Amino acid sequence: MTNLADDHQGLVATLPFERAEYSRRLQRTREAMRQQGLDVLIISDPTNMHWLTGYDGWSFYVHQCVLVSHDDAPLWFGREMDRNGARRTVVMADDHLFGYPDTYVQSTDRHPMDWLSREILIPRNWARARIGVEMDNYYFSAAAFAALQKHLPDAHWADATGLVNWRRAIKSPREIEYMRIAAQIVEAMHRRIIEVVEPGMRKNELVAHIYQAGLLGIEGHGGDYPAIVPMVPTGRDATAPHLTWTDAPIPEQSVTFFEIAGCYRRYHCPQSRTVYLGSPPADLLRAEQVVIEGIAASLDKARPGNTCEDVAEAFFKVLHGGGFQKSSRCGYSIGASYPPDWGERTMSLRAGDRSVLEPGMTFHFMPALWEAQWGLEITEAILITPDGAEPLCQTPRQLFVKD
Amino acid sequence: MTNLADDHQGLVATLPFERAEYSRRLQRTREAMRQQGLDVLIISDPTNMHWLTGYDGWSFYVHQCVLVSHDDAPLWFGREMDRNGARRTVVMADDHLFGYPDTYVQSTDRHPMDWLSREILIPRNWARARIGVEMDNYYFSAAAFAALQKHLPDAHWADATGLVNWRRAIKSPREIEYMRIAAQIVEAMHRRIIEVVEPGMRKNELVAHIYQAGLLGIEGHGGDYPAIVPMVPTGRDATAPHLTWTDAPIPEQSVTFFEIAGCYRRYHCPQSRTVYLGSPPADLLRAEQVVIEGIAASLDKARPGNTCEDVAEAFFKVLHGGGFQKSSRCGYSIGASYPPDWGERTMSLRAGDRSVLEPGMTFHFMPALWEAQWGLEITEAILITPDGAEPLCQTPRQLFVKD
Repeated sequence: MTNLADDHQGLVATLPFERAEYSRRLQRTREAMRQQGLDVLIISDPTNMHWLTGYDGWSFYVHQCVLVSHDDAPLWFGREMDRNGARRTVVMADDHLFGYPDTYVQSTDRHPMDWLSREILIPRNWARARIGVEMDNYYFSAAAFAALQKHLPDAHWADATGLVNWRRAIKSPREIEYMRIAAQIVEAMHRRIIEVVEPGMRKNELVAHIYQAGLLGIEGHGGDYPAIVPMVPTGRDATAPHLTWTDAPIPEQSVTFFEIAGCYRRYHCPQSRTVYLGSPPADLLRAEQVVIEGIAASLDKARPGNTCEDVAEAFFKVLHGGGFQKSSRCGYSIGASYPPDWGERTMSLRAGDRSVLEPGMTFHFMPALWEAQWGLEITEAILITPDGAEPLCQTPRQLFVKD
Repeated sequence: MTNLADDHQGLVATLPFERAEYSRRLQRTREAMRQQGLDVLIISDPTNMHWLTGYDGWSFYVHQCVLVSHDDAPLWFGREMDRNGARRTVVMADDHLFGYPDTYVQSTDRHPMDWLSREILIPRNWARARIGVEMDNYYFSAAAFAALQKHLPDAHWADATGLVNWRRAIKSPREIEYMRIAAQIVEAMHRRIIEVVEPGMRKNELVAHIYQAGLLGIEGHGGDYPAIVPMVPTGRDATAPHLTWTDAPIPEQSVTFFEIAGCYRRYHCPQSRTVYLGSPPADLLRAEQVVIEGIAASLDKARPGNTCEDVAEAFFKVLHGGGFQKSSRCGYSIGASYPPDWGERTMSLRAGDRSVLEPGMTFHFMPALWEAQWGLEITEAILITPDGAEPLCQTPRQLFVKD
């Protein structure tokens, strides 16, 4: 932990990483900018803002960004009231933090990007620069881009979606340490589920247990909020992947899957398990065996030098051989994240993704099945090591049955 | 509750509102479309999608939308795997649900809006239509708009940000019923905080209590997930509005504010309170009195016929008279919501907002102060009735002190 007291005029904050790690991140980002011929990068993705500068706050419901150039430290831009939050969490000095007036918030006649253009971009002579923007990020709206284009008609805009995300793919030792803590947290969450779930329990009550286990965390390490809430559908609701919960009781003879993540200092370890209350139907038990066999085959392929596609193909070969079909990807890259997604949005484990695996990459291997009568999720978060795939969790790899 | 079994071929789901209420919402939306001259409306805001159709799932991390036209029921468009979730939650028949292939998810060479254009918009002869899009919504990225513009170069695009949000401003009796339940939930959350908080308790442990109270809810009504996680900063962190939590212990002689919401079936009742552990400094106690007086003055103005500005001015007059300053708005419209914001993003309680209050509107009156050494949040969710403002919660309006 790095104490920032000296830099912040009496405000005391701790960064989750050493300053040298932020410097390396910035350097790698600038290298990628040079390769794409970018003078300036406007980062709207809250996770990329956090990874580059340390900024951490639930302020992404208003426009904000980090600006990266080649000859100055990054600039933080956000709502004036959030400037104190930036002072408490970022690596930059206070003179690199810019707050826009509150009258620009959710206004119909002015946009925060108007202010950014007039007060920062144009005065810095970036009106004709080559500027990268994250075109397909949640927090870079069509209106934000339109405002920038209006004020800087001579700028050269380039799509930099994923530029920083790709720099995050290989995790540092400290990042892996955080993900291992998150892994222990999600193990505790699944242990709690198996321990308490029973027919008649209301789903919201079970979710309260899940949150409690996730937040209490493990000895010495409390839990942070995952970027997605628990997705815990029962029965026919489990034929769909993304339903959350109600306050209805869980019936007997029902299947529920638990798609959840442990989170520590914004780093995630997602893992899903499925619980059957009663005697599972034969097709669900057969699916369990096929999926477990498919996971083993895939993890065997998940080693440096192989591609994302290789890992996916190993799974789908076993799945199809077992008589099941699945039309969606079977995993994605993971790490730090803010809502609404805990994936990194770079690599997908699917046909056509020829990204080459390297040591330090982390994935959620996610071979879920959503069938006509039930859903089955048995998943693993993995770390690519020089020797192959290391599952981050020790949760038993099975369908849990409580009779 | 409306049982959808008949429409869904054996899938059973319950809608949170009667079908007639969805019909009224659609009718009001179409009236607004006519006034703006729109043939088609593309709704990307998950709350607007939910309010119009019932759709409810954490799938907004991929592109999805609802299409509204004048001569057909709304169309749901999303990822193929989420079609089952739509079948479980929406008012429309299955032939109005369209799923795009998984290869379009987080791909660098194709966009879900390519599929929407080719498979839905163009075949329906909307290529030259006047189409409204929510330009400044989180879930309508610059890339989404660029893809639509590429495929439909002759369409007339109009900014429809807020078109549906404004239709949501006046709540129905059932919506108010849900918000009253959410109000009782947030009361329970604050009671729990006051009961358990003490010096030395780790913040994440306190947050676990807050979640437990919010999820267990009240007799007969379990809690849903609020669109924002608890913002619960202590001491100097409380000089900033949007910091979340760490696993550090809460020190003696410290102030913590709790910006939280109860949530029931996606309807929110936000309310903040502040707790001092020890003997509060004189300036904090003075601020408490000024804020409480300001709230009373404002609520007195919050009645039909007055404007948002009138309410704000009443507060700021008292605040300035008491020697405090605040440069941000003191409230906003509330109701149903999905992350990242529990506000409706229409009306703001601030100078210049001349929106006229009407019975059935609901606001979070939010006169927070973030000073150099502390933050103070004492806030009220209110319902505008024919007679004036009715606070939805009975939580004592004060700074809580635990010695």
